[in-house]
Amino acid sequence: MNYNKEDIIESHNRISKWIHRTPILQSSSINKIAGAEIYFKCENFQKIGAFKMRGALNAVMSTKKQNLKKGFVTHSSGNHAQAVALSSNIANTKAYIVMPKGAPKIKIKAVRGYGAEVTLCENNEDSRVRVCNKIIKETGANFIHPFDNEDVILGQSTCAKEIYEELLDLDYIISPVGGGGLASGTILSTKFFSENTKVVLAEPQKANDAYESFTNKRLIPVSNPNTIADGLKTSLSEKTFKIILDGTDQIVTIEEEEIVNSMKLIWERLKIVCEPSCSLPLAAVLKNKKKFKGKKIGLILTGGNVDVNNLPF
Amino acid sequence: MNYNKEDIIESHNRISKWIHRTPILQSSSINKIAGAEIYFKCENFQKIGAFKMRGALNAVMSTKKQNLKKGFVTHSSGNHAQAVALSSNIANTKAYIVMPKGAPKIKIKAVRGYGAEVTLCENNEDSRVRVCNKIIKETGANFIHPFDNEDVILGQSTCAKEIYEELLDLDYIISPVGGGGLASGTILSTKFFSENTKVVLAEPQKANDAYESFTNKRLIPVSNPNTIADGLKTSLSEKTFKIILDGTDQIVTIEEEEIVNSMKLIWERLKIVCEPSCSLPLAAVLKNKKKFKGKKIGLILTGGNVDVNNLPF
Repeated sequence: MNYNKEDIIESHNRISKWIHRTPILQSSSINKIAGAEIYFKCENFQKIGAFKMRGALNAVMSTKKQNLKKGFVTHSSGNHAQAVALSSNIANTKAYIVMPKGAPKIKIKAVRGYGAEVTLCENNEDSRVRVCNKIIKETGANFIHPFDNEDVILGQSTCAKEIYEELLDLDYIISPVGGGGLASGTILSTKFFSENTKVVLAEPQKANDAYESFTNKRLIPVSNPNTIADGLKTSLSEKTFKIILDGTDQIVTIEEEEIVNSMKLIWERLKIVCEPSCSLPLAAVLKNKKKFKGKKIGLILTGGNVDVNNLPF
Repeated sequence: MNYNKEDIIESHNRISKWIHRTPILQSSSINKIAGAEIYFKCENFQKIGAFKMRGALNAVMSTKKQNLKKGFVTHSSGNHAQAVALSSNIANTKAYIVMPKGAPKIKIKAVRGYGAEVTLCENNEDSRVRVCNKIIKETGANFIHPFDNEDVILGQSTCAKEIYEELLDLDYIISPVGGGGLASGTILSTKFFSENTKVVLAEPQKANDAYESFTNKRLIPVSNPNTIADGLKTSLSEKTFKIILDGTDQIVTIEEEEIVNSMKLIWERLKIVCEPSCSLPLAAVLKNKKKFKGKKIGLILTGGNVDVNNLPF
């Protein structure tokens, strides 16, 4: 697909009634520590507590009327599950969510709270896909992939669009990268709304498939990576890799310790609750101070769904 | 002193250049749980991380020029210390802060970070006052009491004023009460800017001097109360008691367990970092659901300076 500016604008119009226009925060003490001018886009304040709401809702709302009534299905243990559940609820249709048995009970409860039907599967990819396909066959529900989906990517692009509507002259924008939905959306919005801004992606060293794929110019997935940034364990897909290969200035890999330190800094200085995945963009600035010195930088904080009883610091 | 509307407006004009106009947040899930329409005024995002900045800065900026150069002195182990330190820094003058030896090192470091001279004293009230008086004698510095001070009270009143500038028809506003600076300021602003709004105060059961004083219509301090809400251990003073006795609808006392539960709810649903003291107003709503059912309520979240390595939940 060739994405254009109108696609992004239409996507934003399509979803804006139901999503929050999240605030952009600053901290003078973090600016001092980083030696840069940093703007944090707070998607932890988004509906369901994460940017994933944008993509899922755009996919649901882009679905043709005759298909809408069959509902939606996805497999996810994380924020995408809640996003598809709430989006389906908003569209007055059913959601079937396949979640691994090992998923935190609180997340299963949250998904059910949005009215979705949860089907538990074994804790592996094969089982997820098999159960998902069975539901599709039985119900005709529409599958929404968490990132390998144009409408999802376009939905995620609205986050950076909102940043550029408030901040005209960013030198850099930094997004974390997992499956690449947010990263791709950020690249697209940057291309159309702020062409002089460079896109940097931040990835856990322990799940560095995007770095390896970008460097070697071919998709190199990692399997079962183990990182505290649980939202960033997935590997790029065909659709997201294509956009990332084309529009990324640099991919910075981040060690586990750097993730924890940067997360704690955000909690203490910005006074907000956010997931480990959020902290990678700031960690990328802090480990490349020379590159970012004096620059004006937008960072995307992806979400705030974290177990406050089980913090890594 | 007879406070009037102009005093509050002047105080707000005096300090507004240096303080944040903090955001007002909502959570649909908390509204659902409470059965009310709740607006959280987020002073955890204030300069130095707490509303105390308003009062201290107003006191500093109200000081006559010839006295300004002698600097300011106070005794505090908490947010007032940082507030006086930063306010003095802004006014280009010295701050002498008396802190107990047992104060957290991170707080002492923060106060020094604002350029203040820290003098450590023993961990009791006598020693604090003695060391403070010695400094006043030696330097001629101006003493700023954390709450028994008209300019401090007027500074704190600007918080509720900002709420009423955005929300016209609140049924209730709820503030926590410790020494009573914020509570008094809230009552004053309500009187002048939103006379139909009722002021409710929330206080730890374990430090219930305001409740006892209000009920018995005379000042009844508590000594050395032990509550997790460390910002609310102090007792009312003459100046604050007078205002509170006159303008309070109800004082609700809160158990320790309710403080912790309500604090966790705010962290999880609003996705913000805030102190235990912040959670009392919400706890007051949750334990009086009948009274507050369907009402439009403003709650003041006082600050966000909490040790994220040592949470009570």
